Formats: sequence, structure tokens, C-alpha cells
Amino acid sequence: MSGKEGAGRYETTLCYLYGPKGVLMLHRTKKENDINKDKYIGVGGHLEHGESPEDCIKREVWEETGLVMDSFRLRGILTFVIDDIDEITFLYTCDAFSGDLKTCDEGELIWIPEDRIDTLPIWPGDKLFFRLLSERQDVFSLKLHYVKDELVDAALDGKKIDFVV
Amino acid sequence: MSGKEGAGRYETTLCYLYGPKGVLMLHRTKKENDINKDKYIGVGGHLEHGESPEDCIKREVWEETGLVMDSFRLRGILTFVIDDIDEITFLYTCDAFSGDLKTCDEGELIWIPEDRIDTLPIWPGDKLFFRLLSERQDVFSLKLHYVKDELVDAALDGKKIDFVV
Repeated sequence: MSGKEGAGRYETTLCYLYGPKGVLMLHRTKKENDINKDKYIGVGGHLEHGESPEDCIKREVWEETGLVMDSFRLRGILTFVIDDIDEITFLYTCDAFSGDLKTCDEGELIWIPEDRIDTLPIWPGDKLFFRLLSERQDVFSLKLHYVKDELVDAALDGKKIDFVV
Repeated sequence: MSGKEGAGRYETTLCYLYGPKGVLMLHRTKKENDINKDKYIGVGGHLEHGESPEDCIKREVWEETGLVMDSFRLRGILTFVIDDIDEITFLYTCDAFSGDLKTCDEGELIWIPEDRIDTLPIWPGDKLFFRLLSERQDVFSLKLHYVKDELVDAALDGKKIDFVV
């Protein structure tokens, strides 16, 4: 989730980089009034004027991590419905990158072994898409309906699903 | 393209239904001040609050054609950059549907044999994505940069491409 507040439509990107030490997660400890405060999320941000989702995620990964993605792939479309907010997020994974990891203004960048992700404080819907990332090779569309912090409904590829998180 | 005017970000869906007599196209003859006036396009429209792209395209196909889609699939993400406008379009194809075709308020619905599409007045970028629909089985991301009616740049999956339309 983007952290923007108030009614509106937002378009964002989100990427998980997979390296030898695990998955690169951003522990959001630094920003004030952050909807993601203390949660572990991926790298990404808002589409700017003139950007495709790919333009945006390349820029955001570079700005937030100092890394250049050499190979990345669209894996999912996430629709977040949170009260009056609609947010569409383009979800990517990256398995080849170059450069040196830098310090990020928005939190601490940490490599997390894949099997430990479920034990971290992450959004309940994020657990659902991590499962899909491990199960699906094609691009999925996951709709996540939150009321405040609580995930109340989910749909996959247009069909409502039951879930336990 | 959605036909909305002025600066802003828009999220839309677009679907081509494939039936025994060809591809269902909407000949936009009816709306005043229509950016798509006299062009042939697909069926679709704007995402409403609380909708995923799948919710939106099911609703739009039903509203505009009277048909219910029994099987449809996300095929591409289109990024239109047109002067101050940014529009993200989720492109679908449908190969199974039921119901009776109705009259559409926005134009005439016509089944067009697939090999005739290139001969119709369609947007130059639409010719590019029709080629991709025939070549690609995975979800592609196509960015189309227009200055007024002219396609000036295109990128596929984040990389600039040369094109002839």
C-alpha cells in the first residue's frame, strides 16, 4: 500500500529482488505517519507522468536501493480497495541486478531468507501474493479489500477466494 | 483511449471478443466530441471505485454488449501517454460468452474477420497490440506515446521499439 491518504485512485509498482541471501525487504522504520510503519514491504512507488509501470519500477528500485535491475518480470496485478482509496499495484520480481546496495531514506533494506518472510510483520494480503508468487508462473490478478488493517475480502482473477492468513 | 479530456491519470479496460464471425468491434459513430469518433475500437471503460480490472471489464462488456463473458484472459498492459494524459489500460481477450448482442449507445457493434482489422480506421498503436495478441501468449506491457493523433514512440516490456504502422 502506498501510504497516500484520502479518497482517490493511485497507481504504484512494487518489486521483490531475489538474491543469494534471500529477498530484499524494506523495513519501514523511518517515515512519520507511514501506513506501512514497522512493516516489511518491497521496493516501489507511484507512477509519474509519462511512465509505464516498467519505467516506474526501474526508477524506484534505483532511487531506493542504488541497484540496477538487469532482469525483471511482471508477476501480478494487485487491486487494493481500502475504504475510499483504490490502488492498482504492478507487482514485479527481479532475479538479476547490479550495483551496490545503498542506505534508503524510507527504512532499512534487509535480505530475508524466503522461508522467513511469513514470520515477519507484513500485511495479510502480502502473504497471499507471496504464496501466488511461488505457485504461479503466469501473471495473476489479486484483489484485496481492506477495512483499516483488516483484510475482509479477496478475489483472484476475478473470482472471490477464501483465505486464511 | 478513453475519450476523457484534460490532464490526469486514468485506468481503463478494453476487451476484444473472438467469435465465429470474427472479432467484436465497436464502430464509434454515435458520441459527440469523441476522441475515438469514427474509429473501430474494442469494448471497455473506466474502473469505478472498488473494482478490480476484472470486475470492470465484466461490467463494461455486459453494459455495452449485453453479453456475459464465460472465459476471458488478461493479455496486455497498455500505457497511453497523450500530452498531459496518462492512461493505463488492461487489455483482455474473450473466447467464450453467452447472451444476445444488444444495441450499444456508443456506436455500432460489428463482427470483423480478423484479417480485415488492419484495413479499418483504427489507432496506429492498436495495430501494434493486435500483432502482439497474435504473437504472444504471455502478458505484455506496451507503452504508446501519442502527440495528438500521431504515435511518436513505443516501448515493449520497458524497452523502446521501432515500429511501422
